[in-house]
Amino acid sequence: MSRPRTTSGPARDAGRDPAPWTAFGGDLHLDLGERRAAGAGLRAALEDALREAVQDGRLAPGTRLPSSRALGEDLGIARNTVVEAYGQLTAEGWLSSRQGSGTTVAERAAPRPAGRAVEVRAGVRPTGRHDLLAGRPDLSLFPRSAWLASARRALAVAPHEAFDYGSPLGRIELRRALSDYLARVRGVRTDPDRLLVCAGFGQGLGLLAAALRERGAGRVAVEAYGLPPQRDALRAAGLGLAPLPLDCSGARTDLLAELSGSRSAEREAGRLGAVLLTPAHQFPTGAALAAERRAAAVHWAREYDGYVIEDDYDGEFRYDRQPLGAMQALDPDRVVYGGTAAKSLAPGLRLAWLALPDELVGPVARLKASADTMSPVLDQLTFAELITSGRYDRHVRRCRLHYRHRRDRLVTALAERAPRVKVTGIAAGLHAVLQLPPGSSPEPELMDRARAAGLVLTGLGWYLTEHTPAPDAAPSLVVGYATPAEHAFPAAVDALCEVLRTA
Amino acid sequence: MSRPRTTSGPARDAGRDPAPWTAFGGDLHLDLGERRAAGAGLRAALEDALREAVQDGRLAPGTRLPSSRALGEDLGIARNTVVEAYGQLTAEGWLSSRQGSGTTVAERAAPRPAGRAVEVRAGVRPTGRHDLLAGRPDLSLFPRSAWLASARRALAVAPHEAFDYGSPLGRIELRRALSDYLARVRGVRTDPDRLLVCAGFGQGLGLLAAALRERGAGRVAVEAYGLPPQRDALRAAGLGLAPLPLDCSGARTDLLAELSGSRSAEREAGRLGAVLLTPAHQFPTGAALAAERRAAAVHWAREYDGYVIEDDYDGEFRYDRQPLGAMQALDPDRVVYGGTAAKSLAPGLRLAWLALPDELVGPVARLKASADTMSPVLDQLTFAELITSGRYDRHVRRCRLHYRHRRDRLVTALAERAPRVKVTGIAAGLHAVLQLPPGSSPEPELMDRARAAGLVLTGLGWYLTEHTPAPDAAPSLVVGYATPAEHAFPAAVDALCEVLRTA
Repeated sequence: MSRPRTTSGPARDAGRDPAPWTAFGGDLHLDLGERRAAGAGLRAALEDALREAVQDGRLAPGTRLPSSRALGEDLGIARNTVVEAYGQLTAEGWLSSRQGSGTTVAERAAPRPAGRAVEVRAGVRPTGRHDLLAGRPDLSLFPRSAWLASARRALAVAPHEAFDYGSPLGRIELRRALSDYLARVRGVRTDPDRLLVCAGFGQGLGLLAAALRERGAGRVAVEAYGLPPQRDALRAAGLGLAPLPLDCSGARTDLLAELSGSRSAEREAGRLGAVLLTPAHQFPTGAALAAERRAAAVHWAREYDGYVIEDDYDGEFRYDRQPLGAMQALDPDRVVYGGTAAKSLAPGLRLAWLALPDELVGPVARLKASADTMSPVLDQLTFAELITSGRYDRHVRRCRLHYRHRRDRLVTALAERAPRVKVTGIAAGLHAVLQLPPGSSPEPELMDRARAAGLVLTGLGWYLTEHTPAPDAAPSLVVGYATPAEHAFPAAVDALCEVLRTA
Repeated sequence: MSRPRTTSGPARDAGRDPAPWTAFGGDLHLDLGERRAAGAGLRAALEDALREAVQDGRLAPGTRLPSSRALGEDLGIARNTVVEAYGQLTAEGWLSSRQGSGTTVAERAAPRPAGRAVEVRAGVRPTGRHDLLAGRPDLSLFPRSAWLASARRALAVAPHEAFDYGSPLGRIELRRALSDYLARVRGVRTDPDRLLVCAGFGQGLGLLAAALRERGAGRVAVEAYGLPPQRDALRAAGLGLAPLPLDCSGARTDLLAELSGSRSAEREAGRLGAVLLTPAHQFPTGAALAAERRAAAVHWAREYDGYVIEDDYDGEFRYDRQPLGAMQALDPDRVVYGGTAAKSLAPGLRLAWLALPDELVGPVARLKASADTMSPVLDQLTFAELITSGRYDRHVRRCRLHYRHRRDRLVTALAERAPRVKVTGIAAGLHAVLQLPPGSSPEPELMDRARAAGLVLTGLGWYLTEHTPAPDAAPSLVVGYATPAEHAFPAAVDALCEVLRTA
């Protein structure tokens, strides 16, 4: 369709009467000649020329075509070639052939409308010179050579059946590798039969939400601050949200029993079926969930037949002390562990995993099967190879050093240039929360100023669950210090400090 | 968890009282020694030993641990190492430390139950020696070297932002490549802004069904024979099914207006919002949809504000004449074109695409974004490279020759050894329908005999839409002749002929 036209007959002006064959026939010689010069066979060239003419309206519906004999003579080609071309286009529905009335352009062949398609902006982020939006790694760290080396090895050894439809849980090679890796690095207690590979933690959360809904859950408790798309996913599954306040020990899981409420409250608001937590590093405020809060959540889950969903989105990135083990290990029958390669490798891989309690393996796997059969196999095989070869460990170590260095540079710059700003949540992860001193501009104004300076980031308020009264806390910015590429980091920090200096 | 235990204290017998520290402490020396010999640091070894003991119940909840000083002396290590290990395990929730009462094993640390996880069989196919189940390509043809070469090139040239979250439509590189490829090979009229990359046509169909439901559709017309999982996907979205009878010209789309029915019928059964068709090669019966039937479907869609969903699952594989162009080109505003790499490359890639009418681009893209954000990028970039480099064309040509040869061998063998069997639907695709002569055993009996001979295949009846009266046609088998690897094909054909000879 993008081929330039060789003719410019009057029929192409919109709103005019369709031109008869004669307005087109004269150009056909030239068109055919060009197509043949470009290497097309004679019959194919004729078919293409006629098909395109019908498609773009040069040959209007109802136009009567010359007989095959006449067109053959006209073009100096065998009549049979024309007969075959007419036959093909008739079979495709472009032309109509009726005994006695010859060949005409079919009535239903509507020309392609010229308008532009709807622009789809979902998933496209705001743009600016200095990208400090939290939630993404430095994409320039993606280990392209290591990935390719692992892909080569994975393609070399994969059995043919690996390319087939398979288990909704995902490829066994990856589930084995992950089971060992997660036990070693995060203390997760699972095995390959309880792991499910999914297309990002977002998909995993959606599947869990649907499974909980099927099992009678009406509500899920969420942290008062969290990712809006996660709350959307829960709501989309028909679940209500019950926000949990946060303090310096993390989410107030001690309130879960109260939130579950009495039987009558349950009937009204729906049974509280799960709590979604970010225990290693609360997103975005940054607190680690204290031991007694972990215990309270697991205790609640046991007492109320609920589940804890542990979103371990950046558990591999803890800088100043040993990582806290996953809370899943406290009770693998009550805690669903969710991990992802979005921070350690790249969001574009859409690779995440759930370690599931026995009771949820079947329901979640069935939902995954009906959503998309299973996750694609080649990335799974490659990632498995990356892990078992030790390349993944080396890559994560390298990233950890890189991000710690980034964090330290940010903290140093802020201490020098915006000393009244309090930096929190930086023991782990890829982002910091910058709390401004009393008397600073309110968050929306701050955001306007940041935008004007070319900064892409969010205020803490953006993460607040609706229906939770906003705390009278100072305005705060959430800064993803891992996001910019290395060369862009100093300028981004400069711009940030400048905005904070005048806030 | 899979490490063999070095001790076998009494506490591990189920049902007995938890052992006090003393039953465990004695083994700790030995355990630590082994861990250190295996290369673990002292503190890590101590933590791991304690953590595992809590996890598997050797250290029961409530058990009081020695003071850090006592244990340090006992083990001959620095007290501080013990303090750090206790601190870490307390933070993870395994131990409890309270001022004055020392360190105990936390109450919530339940031992891992021993039972096996639920076995998940969804998506796992029946097994047999001779796999002739329709719907899959010969997986040994997957072009591993070409794919790897394209992956190398794609990884070399991709911008960093390619690894980021992106448009739910998919990577622009692939949409551009597909737009050109589909125009050239299938006559599809679309552009990159109207293409959406999805995780298999099954996901695409599910997204379409949800979008149609949102727009008020209550029913979808389907071919009387088709893939049961596709019907499940439509039903899962809350849509009813209206089966269309088939004849030698394909689906009876001339009946669509009647199926739409009167306004009162519509109120009762729900508005007929779409028809799902396999125009190039009806699945599984094999007829090509005739020109007047194509026209009737498009005409219905225009008159009744409906959509045609064109499942072009094997459009690239036509053997005896030129492929029929996609019917989408008849009216890109009324026909959704769906294609897939499942047959031309491999089902395990989960790579498919929809060419959407303008009106559906936004709704379907939003649903895709909420399902899994977007499809994974690396396979998309690699596939785009495979297409633009010409490797994909060569691969498809090679497969076409291979499958045509397979088909011819099957037809020849049947003509010789089961001459009364009628072979149909073989002008295209990767499967044939074998119709048995009158007086043959009924289909279920035939299937039993096939299974006993080690054959994996289905009878035609398996594809029949419920609620459609079974035709009094002869028993038929659907044979996927592309499915076995080359070395396994002759034996599979032998086994098949033997079953048919005695049917």
